[in-house]
Parts: sequence; C-alpha cells; structure tokens
Amino acid sequence: MGISVDTFFLKPGGQGTLQAQIQQMIAEGILSGRFHVGEKLPSSRKLAAHLGVSRITVTLAYTELLANDYLTAKGRSGYYVSQNAPVPPKYTPVQRSEETVNWDAALARRFSDGDFLAKPPDWREYSYPFIYGQADRTLFDHANWRLCAVRALGHKDFDSLTGDYVDQDDPLLIEFIARHTLPRRGIAARPEEILITLGAQNALWLTSRILLGHGRKAAIEDPSYYALHELMRCSDASMTPLRVDKDGLPPESIPDGTDVIYTTPSHQCPTTATMPVARRHDLLKRARELDAMIVEDDYEFEMAFLGAPSPALKSLDKDGRVVYVGSFSKSLFPGLRLGYMVGSEPFIREARALRSLVFRHPPGHIQRTAAYFLSLGHYDAQIRRMSKALMQRRKTIEDAIEANGLTVAGRGVFGGSSMWMKAPDHVDTAELAKTLQNQSVHIEPGAAFFSGPDRPRNYYRLGYSSISADRIPAGIERVAAVIRAC
Amino acid sequence: MGISVDTFFLKPGGQGTLQAQIQQMIAEGILSGRFHVGEKLPSSRKLAAHLGVSRITVTLAYTELLANDYLTAKGRSGYYVSQNAPVPPKYTPVQRSEETVNWDAALARRFSDGDFLAKPPDWREYSYPFIYGQADRTLFDHANWRLCAVRALGHKDFDSLTGDYVDQDDPLLIEFIARHTLPRRGIAARPEEILITLGAQNALWLTSRILLGHGRKAAIEDPSYYALHELMRCSDASMTPLRVDKDGLPPESIPDGTDVIYTTPSHQCPTTATMPVARRHDLLKRARELDAMIVEDDYEFEMAFLGAPSPALKSLDKDGRVVYVGSFSKSLFPGLRLGYMVGSEPFIREARALRSLVFRHPPGHIQRTAAYFLSLGHYDAQIRRMSKALMQRRKTIEDAIEANGLTVAGRGVFGGSSMWMKAPDHVDTAELAKTLQNQSVHIEPGAAFFSGPDRPRNYYRLGYSSISADRIPAGIERVAAVIRAC
Repeated sequence: MGISVDTFFLKPGGQGTLQAQIQQMIAEGILSGRFHVGEKLPSSRKLAAHLGVSRITVTLAYTELLANDYLTAKGRSGYYVSQNAPVPPKYTPVQRSEETVNWDAALARRFSDGDFLAKPPDWREYSYPFIYGQADRTLFDHANWRLCAVRALGHKDFDSLTGDYVDQDDPLLIEFIARHTLPRRGIAARPEEILITLGAQNALWLTSRILLGHGRKAAIEDPSYYALHELMRCSDASMTPLRVDKDGLPPESIPDGTDVIYTTPSHQCPTTATMPVARRHDLLKRARELDAMIVEDDYEFEMAFLGAPSPALKSLDKDGRVVYVGSFSKSLFPGLRLGYMVGSEPFIREARALRSLVFRHPPGHIQRTAAYFLSLGHYDAQIRRMSKALMQRRKTIEDAIEANGLTVAGRGVFGGSSMWMKAPDHVDTAELAKTLQNQSVHIEPGAAFFSGPDRPRNYYRLGYSSISADRIPAGIERVAAVIRAC
Repeated sequence: MGISVDTFFLKPGGQGTLQAQIQQMIAEGILSGRFHVGEKLPSSRKLAAHLGVSRITVTLAYTELLANDYLTAKGRSGYYVSQNAPVPPKYTPVQRSEETVNWDAALARRFSDGDFLAKPPDWREYSYPFIYGQADRTLFDHANWRLCAVRALGHKDFDSLTGDYVDQDDPLLIEFIARHTLPRRGIAARPEEILITLGAQNALWLTSRILLGHGRKAAIEDPSYYALHELMRCSDASMTPLRVDKDGLPPESIPDGTDVIYTTPSHQCPTTATMPVARRHDLLKRARELDAMIVEDDYEFEMAFLGAPSPALKSLDKDGRVVYVGSFSKSLFPGLRLGYMVGSEPFIREARALRSLVFRHPPGHIQRTAAYFLSLGHYDAQIRRMSKALMQRRKTIEDAIEANGLTVAGRGVFGGSSMWMKAPDHVDTAELAKTLQNQSVHIEPGAAFFSGPDRPRNYYRLGYSSISADRIPAGIERVAAVIRAC
C-alpha cells in the first residue's frame, strides 16, 4: 500500500532547508511507526506538487534516505520503506498509577529553592532590554565563529571532537590562555595550573566543593553575584557577608577564622567598584594572616573601554593562595559555557579530579573552536568591536540617566556593561521591574544580590550589552517615569 | 621599521589552511608584543616567496587581518600593524617565591586519589586496541554530524547557540528523546521528567548528590562501573557492594536500610548479564519494601544486534522510584559529553536546580546538533551501521577466543561492544596488560571494577568497538600467548 501524499505537511516556519525538512518528516514517520516496512512513498513528482517545492528537492531528500537505508529504490517503480529501516517501539509504555515514593525522605539534599534572577525567556522581544550578560546579535562575530567551528569539525580534528579527554583539556586552548590571555592580567601560569570549566559558574562551584564544607568559614562581598549565595548555602560552610564600599571589599572587615574569601576586585559585582592596588596588597596580607584562600572572580576585564583594567589580584599573589576565575561567557556568549580557572598545582589537581567525577571535561569541539577563534585573532577583534559599541552606549546611558534625574550607585571606571542604580528608599525595584515589563522594559531588581533578612529593595541593575544606543534614551525615560509615579 | 621576513616560519604539520596559519602567525606576533603598532609587514610577494606559498594566500591572510583591524593598509606602500591592534600585556608577571599555603589545611575535600581506568592517550596508535567506549573513525558518520553542526550554527539557531538557557534544555532535543528514544525502551515521559546531562557520568553524579549523603546507604553491583566507586566515596554515604550472578543483581541480597540501588539491568557492567523480567519485578518489589530509589544505568541498549534488548526497568516502574540514565557517548562519541536522565518530577526538579548551580546546562550548540542528527534519521542509520560492524566483530572475537582456548566470563546476549574475560587464577591482568602494551595490544584489567580489599585480579575486558574485525584474530592470539607464558 502506498503512503498517501496527504499525510505530508511542511510546518510553517519550519527550520532548515526544504530538503532537510522533507527528509526529517519521512524519517520521523518511520521512527514513530506511522510508515511501515515495504510501504511505497509518493512519487517525487507527486510529493513535490503537493508540497509546492521543486522535484529535485524531493529527489535529493529521497536519495539521502536511501543512503541511510531508510528507503529502498525498486527500479522505476519508486521508493519504499526499507526492510532495514529502524522499527518503532515494541513496548507499550506503562500507565503510571499513583507514585508511592516518599520524596521528603528520598531526597537527601534539596537544591530547588534557590534565589535565581529570573530572566524573561522572551527578552529579545522587549523594546528596551536592559538585560545583563547576554549575547548581542549585532556585535558577535557569528561568521568567524562559524568558520572556526567548521574547521574544528574537520578530519584533522576528529580526535579532539570525539575523544574522551578523561580529565584533560584541549592543549591548544590551554596554550593560548597561558601564553596570551593570562599575561594580559599579569598572570604567569603553567598548563598544569589551568583548568577549563563550563563557565565561571562551574569554576566557582568547584572552588566551593574543594575549599568549603561543614565547619569551614567563607566570607563573601555584600552585595555580590546572586548565584554565589546558593553556592555557599549548598557548601555546608558558614558564610559572612561583608559590606563593600566604593573601593570594594574592605580587608579589615574579614573576620578571624575565615577560610575562603570570595571577591571581585577588578570590577565588583554588582557595584562595579575597582579595588585600588594598595587595598589589594592589604587583602593579600590579611589572607596570609588568616592562612585563608582567595577566590578572585575576574569577570568582564575585557570590557575596558574607558581605561586600562587593573592587573588581577592573582598577579600580586606570591603565596599561591589566589584561585583566579575567568570566563568567555560575557565576551563571546553565555551559551558557550566556557571559562577557566588558574591556581596552584595542588588545588588544580583536586579541581581536575572533581571535574572528571562530575562530568569529565567540557566538550572537545567547543574547546577547539574557541582555541581557533582566539588564536586567529577574531576574539580580540570582537572585543574591540564590542568595546566601541559599549563605549557609545555607556555615554548614552549616562547622559540619559542624568537628563532624567536618576541616581547612579556605581559605574565601572574602566568600562563594563552595566550601571548599578539606586531608586528612592520607598521604591521596591521588584515591583518596579514588573510594572516596566508591561512597557516592554526589562531591568534587574537588586535585592537578590544582597545577603540576609534586611536586604535593601531599592537597588537595580541596568545592563547595556544587549540594547542598542538609539533605544537607550526612551528606555531610561520610561524607567524614570515609573519611579516618579511610585 | 619593517618586520623582517625571517621571523616568519610555517610550522611543519601545522593545522588549518595555509592562509589560516599565516593569519594566526601574524595575530600571535601582535598579541605577544613581538610586532608593534606602526611596524610594516613584509610585502605579500616577499612573504609568499619566503614561505613558499602563493601570493594570493598571503594577500587573503592580510585582507582578513585588515578586516579585524589588526593591520591597516597605506595606499601602495603596504600593510602596517594597526593603531587599533590589541596591545600586549602591560604587567610583568610576578615571579613566585615559595608558596606559603598549607594545602593539608586548605583543601576541605580531596578528589584526586580515585581509581580511574588508565586509557593510553595514544591508543589509536595501537595495532590491537581492545579499548572500550571510544569512537571508531570508520563507523562514525562524521560527514552528517558536520552538516548538522553547521546547520546548528546558522542564523536561525543563533539563540540556541548563544543563549543562556539558565536551567532549561534545547526543546527540540527533549522532544525527540521523549517521542522517539524513550518509547523504544518502553518509557513514557513528559518533558519536565527529562534532563540533559553532560554524559552518563554526569547523570550518575547528580543522583549521588541528590539521593545520597552522610547517613544514607547505597547498594551497588559488584563488579560495577569503576567510576561508580569514586562517586560513592565522595557522596559520604555508606556503600554495600553486592555480588552479581549470571542474571545480574540478586534482589534478595539487598540489605535492609538501603536507600538507593545502583543497577545496570539490561546489560550488567562489566559482566554484560541481562536481568530476566521476573527478577526485574522482584527488584522493584524489594525496592518498594525498602522505600528505596533505584538508579538504572541503561548503557549500550542501542547495540542490540543479536536480539531485541529487554525493555528498561523504568518501563515497569509504577511507583516513580526508578531514575533512568541514558547516554549518547557510546553510540555517537564520548567527546560529545551528552546524556540524559528520566525521573519523577520531584527528582528532576532537584537535578535541574543542582545542574544549574554546578554549570547551568550543556552547551546549546551540541544539544541542537544532536537534535538535528537524531531527527534527520542519521542517528538510527549510524546505529544500524555500527551494529552490523559490531556483529561481525563479535563473531570474529568469539571464534578467536574459542580457537585460542580463552575463557569468557560474560557476553551480552543481545549484543554490546565488549567481552568480559577470565584469565587463570594466578594471572594478574594488570601485569598482563602491561606486557601486552609492548606488543601493541591494549586490554582493560578488571580489578578496578571490583569493590573491597580482596578484588579478583584475573578478570579483564576486551572491547571490540574500536578494532577492525581483520585485526581481532592476531590480537587475541597475542593475548592468549602471553597468558600461556604467565
């Protein structure tokens, strides 16, 4: 029996070429059991006419399915579902009755009640997306990234694509980071002192598992990167939040008994403060007194369009007590999930073993693609392109903020991609964000960055890495109008 | 001043096109500070002659660097390092003096003393690689994987490539797994019951963090997947190894008080035993008595070339107490780092939150590439191609084993990609493996799969997924010869 041409539909807005869509439609029909072994496909002429595509498109899709042994061709009589085509499932799935697991008892630990900053999944549809840390389509060098990815898919790179590195990384990427990226932050590191991570989040998590645990004491900045609170909570360590000032974390506020200090000296998150060099030396001295480790999250150092960034804290560290965390999420794109950490060998050895236990290694293909993108100079070119655009946006947002009488609580002196803002005391910025959402404006409420029960609720963050300069003034006007009406 | 043509060398065996190599060489010269702003590059004619390449190759490399603003062109006088080119590091890296960290105190937990199965990094050079779980160049459909990856790099997929999914996954991949992959194992699952992981290792780790902890009791098979021992050790739970028989894990041996049971019912690792359906029901019954969770590692079900695989244990689970773990590492390639887990919603909710904390999500691009590869039918075509080859290799290896008088301890009844072997009692297979290494034969010693102090040392595993059939007989002869000489 022939398969009726009427069972074929091209989905409106379907993805991929027409040929790929047709091929997929037939493969899915076979895999789902709708089309059976020996059934005859419509002729290419008929199917092409039905779908309104050219006949060669259908023929090419059939040829591909022939090569994959989904179809067989019988002389002139046409195409049939192959004897060797995959068979649909044999088992009837069980209808679940009542589940009997006592989940309160079964779950040894809970992770799902954390405090995450909600990003609307449709933020790209917003007219005024003051969102932080997402890729800007207009700035990312997609064409060259694609070329590098294709190169990394080549036959020469088959092993780096498919191989199990066990606990190792792509040597090309490690070499580039050691020779070119780290020296710009004043850091000298050997390959065995560097580990590739799945983004900075993954690096911070690894430090929390290795350096913290029951009975340990961590000090974090207040306010700080919101995901850090959840990391600390899950580490079983006790945590002291330390209020930052205009120069970042005050070393003298770090209490005795502290084992690990989490800090963002070059660009405090979220206040954007830069720690002066003298204070950095004091911080290292205080850590030495305590015999404490320091985890330095050096995010966004690349976005330095107003002045040179300070050298990393790690560059001043003679003791080997600083673990440095870098990321390509902001400068490339967050979906890449690629970062790195630098530390003394005894630390990196543990981090490497733990990473291996948890997921082995970041996929080889993305490591190799990044290595090419970096070593061909595309990365630096992209940073400069981004920096130019961010500089213009920064000027525009500062002007608009001033013109509308809004209050800046922190702005990165060397650049960055966000402004830390303060609304009047009576304004709850979570409510503000909700109201603005209805006006197609996205802002980030600040409460999640603070620790403890009495979090200030009147701060907010304005990211300018995903909004074009010409949109900024109207967006800021709307923010100001809603604040005035509060 | 001009940059001398003599400072340019093409590395022998360098990767990528000649144009890319030249571009990279110049970009690295600038990034490392060897070439300075305003310096003149050699003319394309001169550099081409020096390197022995065509002039157009050099010109194209220069043009690309011009576009990236590394170089500027001044009329007819040539190419110069651009004013806007990235600047080399400003800071002199600190020379580390003695490190002062007390690492014994600083490290809260240690992970680096685990028991990993050493795979020689150069195993592809071996004449007889009886290695397990690596990609076979001759069987993997590299061309179509590449096409799918390129499609997933397209403009339409920009968001899935670059976006931060936070705690979500690629909806296309989830949909395919729910609609096509799981029904073949008899499993019905909604999207919120599925989580994509960085390989099966990552899924197993997530279960250990969520279901285990201090005071909990785990039961594992003995022997079992070697990395499971390390997972158990790091979970702080107590662990009971249970000796498997020819039907896998005996349910009656599971002690009272057990909280979580780790099992490989369809294809016991490493003995390859398949658990009969009656015992599966007994296992579920025993778990219900104990109110215990079961983690089912359903590896290699795709490699069923001798008979249909049994439906998954999860397909019989009405209670919601089975967490199912699947992987694409064996059927695609391990460097992909892609697997998935299926469980009741309360469990997957925690796994999703923990994954988000640890690394957010597997990179969007690899998820989308896999979704295309699966939905276009390439995956099933590949499985059938692999199965054909594995069937031939299996027959060859069984014949060779018999001809050489070696002893099989377990062989997968429906297929698989390895044989579980037993040498005479006095043979230490770790020593055997070392001796064979000098003869270009790789085998896997079996002791790492066993638990406890008195591990049998005379078992070994022969993988046949990365050795061609024509190599197998000579390889087995060498194994047999060395065992006879022991």
